Amino acid sequence: MEQLVNWMKEKDVSASFLTSTPNVFYLSNFYSDPHERLLGLLVFPEHSPILICPNMEVEQVKATGWSHSILGYSDTENPWEMMKEEINKRNISIEKLAIEKEHMIVSRYKALLALFPQATFVSAEEKMYELRLIKDEQEVAILREAAKLADFGVEIGVHYIQKGRTEQELVAAIEYELKKKGIREMSFSTMALTGSKTASPHGKPGLNSINEGDLILFDLGVVLDGYCSDITRTLAFDHLSEEGHNIYETVLQAELSAVNACKPGVEIGSLDRIARSLITEAGYGQYFTHRLGHGLGIEVHEYPSMNETNTMKLQKGMTFTIEPGIYVPGFGGVRIEDDVYITDTGYELLTQYPKELQIIKK
Amino acid sequence: MEQLVNWMKEKDVSASFLTSTPNVFYLSNFYSDPHERLLGLLVFPEHSPILICPNMEVEQVKATGWSHSILGYSDTENPWEMMKEEINKRNISIEKLAIEKEHMIVSRYKALLALFPQATFVSAEEKMYELRLIKDEQEVAILREAAKLADFGVEIGVHYIQKGRTEQELVAAIEYELKKKGIREMSFSTMALTGSKTASPHGKPGLNSINEGDLILFDLGVVLDGYCSDITRTLAFDHLSEEGHNIYETVLQAELSAVNACKPGVEIGSLDRIARSLITEAGYGQYFTHRLGHGLGIEVHEYPSMNETNTMKLQKGMTFTIEPGIYVPGFGGVRIEDDVYITDTGYELLTQYPKELQIIKK
Repeated sequence: MEQLVNWMKEKDVSASFLTSTPNVFYLSNFYSDPHERLLGLLVFPEHSPILICPNMEVEQVKATGWSHSILGYSDTENPWEMMKEEINKRNISIEKLAIEKEHMIVSRYKALLALFPQATFVSAEEKMYELRLIKDEQEVAILREAAKLADFGVEIGVHYIQKGRTEQELVAAIEYELKKKGIREMSFSTMALTGSKTASPHGKPGLNSINEGDLILFDLGVVLDGYCSDITRTLAFDHLSEEGHNIYETVLQAELSAVNACKPGVEIGSLDRIARSLITEAGYGQYFTHRLGHGLGIEVHEYPSMNETNTMKLQKGMTFTIEPGIYVPGFGGVRIEDDVYITDTGYELLTQYPKELQIIKK
Repeated sequence: MEQLVNWMKEKDVSASFLTSTPNVFYLSNFYSDPHERLLGLLVFPEHSPILICPNMEVEQVKATGWSHSILGYSDTENPWEMMKEEINKRNISIEKLAIEKEHMIVSRYKALLALFPQATFVSAEEKMYELRLIKDEQEVAILREAAKLADFGVEIGVHYIQKGRTEQELVAAIEYELKKKGIREMSFSTMALTGSKTASPHGKPGLNSINEGDLILFDLGVVLDGYCSDITRTLAFDHLSEEGHNIYETVLQAELSAVNACKPGVEIGSLDRIARSLITEAGYGQYFTHRLGHGLGIEVHEYPSMNETNTMKLQKGMTFTIEPGIYVPGFGGVRIEDDVYITDTGYELLTQYPKELQIIKK
C-alpha cells in the first residue's frame, strides 16, 4: 500500500481504483469473487483507503483485519453514487484516476467518466504488476506449500491409475484427497487426460478410460491462502511406443534446459528459445503450440508472460511456470511443468514431483 | 445466430464482436475459458462469422462442429491486426460495432477504438440477454438434469453429516461423488457451512466441524453441457433451538410463497417483496441482506436480477433462482434456494430436494 501511495504521489495520481479480486486481495487481504457485483478499493495519496463491497460481505472484510473505511451497498443501492459522496465528503478532487484497464469493463469505465468528467484516466496495472512481480519471503513460503500440495495431487493421480479408470475418476480422486486436506479451491479445473486426448493442451477430462500404451497427463494446482500452484506431469500406462519415448525425452530435455538457465539477469525470451530450439531440432517445432510459461502468484496466470519475445530480465523473487509441450494430433501429447522461484544466484524448484518417464504397470 | 443477425440488420449494426465465454458458447457451441487470451466471435449481417481463438484451441473449435472461419493466433501474434485484415479482405466497413460493454475491458476497447476510429460502439448485451433469457426445450432439458445433479449433491452432503466432520470433508465428498458421475466442473465453489458460519451468505468452508445443535448449510451446483444449477438447503444436527426453528420456518414460508406466485405476467419485483414482507413481519427484515435470486442458465448468475425494484414480467421459458435467507451474526443463518422454470401457466421446480426441516440424528 505504501509503495502504491508513493507511486501515486510521484505521478500526481489523485486516486487509484482497484477492482480485480487479486489486486484488492494483495492490498487489503480481503479475497472475494463478487461475480457481477462491484468490488473496489479506493486508495488516495493523502487520505485513508475505502473498500467498496456488497453489504453481505462487510463482516468478512472486518474479519480480515481491515481497519479502514468499508462502504457496503445493498442490491438496490447505487455504489457509484455512494462512492462519489464519500469522496466529496473528504473534499478530494479527482483529476487523475488510476484504474485497471485490463480488468475494468466498458460500462463501469463509462460510469466513472460520468462521475468524474474532468478526470484523466491512467493505468494502475503497470505499478500493481511491478509490485506483485517480486514475491517476499512470506509469499514464497505460501507458494512453496501450494506447490507441495500440487505434487501431492499428482501423486494421488498416479496412485489411482488403473486400466479402465476414466479421466474423471482420476480428477475426482485428486480433488477429493486435496479437499480433505483443507484445500478449498483448485487454481483451475483439474486436468487428467489419457490416450490421444493428451494432444489437446486445453483438453477437458471426460469418461474415456485408460488403456495399455496410453500417455496420461495431469495438469493441476491448488489455491492456498490466496496463492496458486500449477504442475503438469505426463506418464505412460503399461508401455510406450518409440515415438512416445522420443517425444517424452525431447520435452524433458527442453524443460530441464530452460529451468537450468534460470537466474537473475537472464532474459525471459531466451528461456523460451532454449526450450523451443531443442524441440525444433528434434523435429517437433510445429507441435509446441504455446509459450513456455507464465507468471504465478495470486493468479495462476499472471504477469509476466514467459514467451520468446519478452525482453524482461529475471529478478530475485519472481515466480513462474516453465512448461514446454509437444502435441501431435491423433497421437498424443507430453507436457512437463514446474513452478520456479528465482533466488539470489539461481532458482528453486517449488514443484518437486519426479520428472523421469514413469511407465505404470498394474 | 439468425435472430442476432436480424437485430443487426434492423439496427444497422456492421458487426457484433462477442467476447465472453457464455455468449461465444451460446452462438457457436464452443465453450472455452481463454484466461487472459482473446476469445472472440465476429458476426456480420451479410457475411459468415469468424471465431478468434488461441491456435491451440482450433482443433477443439472444429470438434464442436463449427463450420465457419476460425482465426487462430499464437502467443506472439497480434489477433487484433489479424482480425482487421480478415475484415478488410471481405471489404466490410465497420461503422457501428456492437460489443459486450459488461464484459469487454478498457484496454481492448481502446484497441478497437484504434482499429476502427470511425466506428460508433453500441451494446450487444441487450440483445444477447434477451436471446438467452428465454430457454428452449433443449436448454430446459439440460437445466433439469443439472438440477437433479444438484439435488444429488445435497443428498450426498446430508448423508455425510456426522459429528466432528469438517465443512471441507463435506465439500470433498459432494464433489467426489459428482465428479465420478462425469461432472467436470461445479458451477461455483461448493459451500458447506456449519454452526454460526451459516450466518455468512458468502462464507467459505473451512476445517471447523459439526456439533450438536448446529445449523448446516449446503449451497452448490454443477455445470452440465454448459448449463448451471444452483441449490441451497439448510439442516440441523441433533437438535435445533427455538430461535433456529423460527428462522427456518420463516425462510421456508417466504420461499414457498415466492415460488407459488410464479407464473407468466407476474412482476419480478413482486416476488422479492412477497418473500421480504414475510421475513420483515417475522422481525428478521434486517437479516435478509440480499436480493431474492438471479437468472440461471449458461451462467450461474445471469440476467435478470430477481430484486425488489425489477419491473420486468415473468415469461414462459425463463429460469432463475429463488433463495431468501436470514442471517443472524453470531447465531447462524438459513437459506433455501430452488431453480425455477416458468411454464405456460405457472412454474416447474427444477430442484426437488425436500425443504421441510430435517434434523439429522447420528
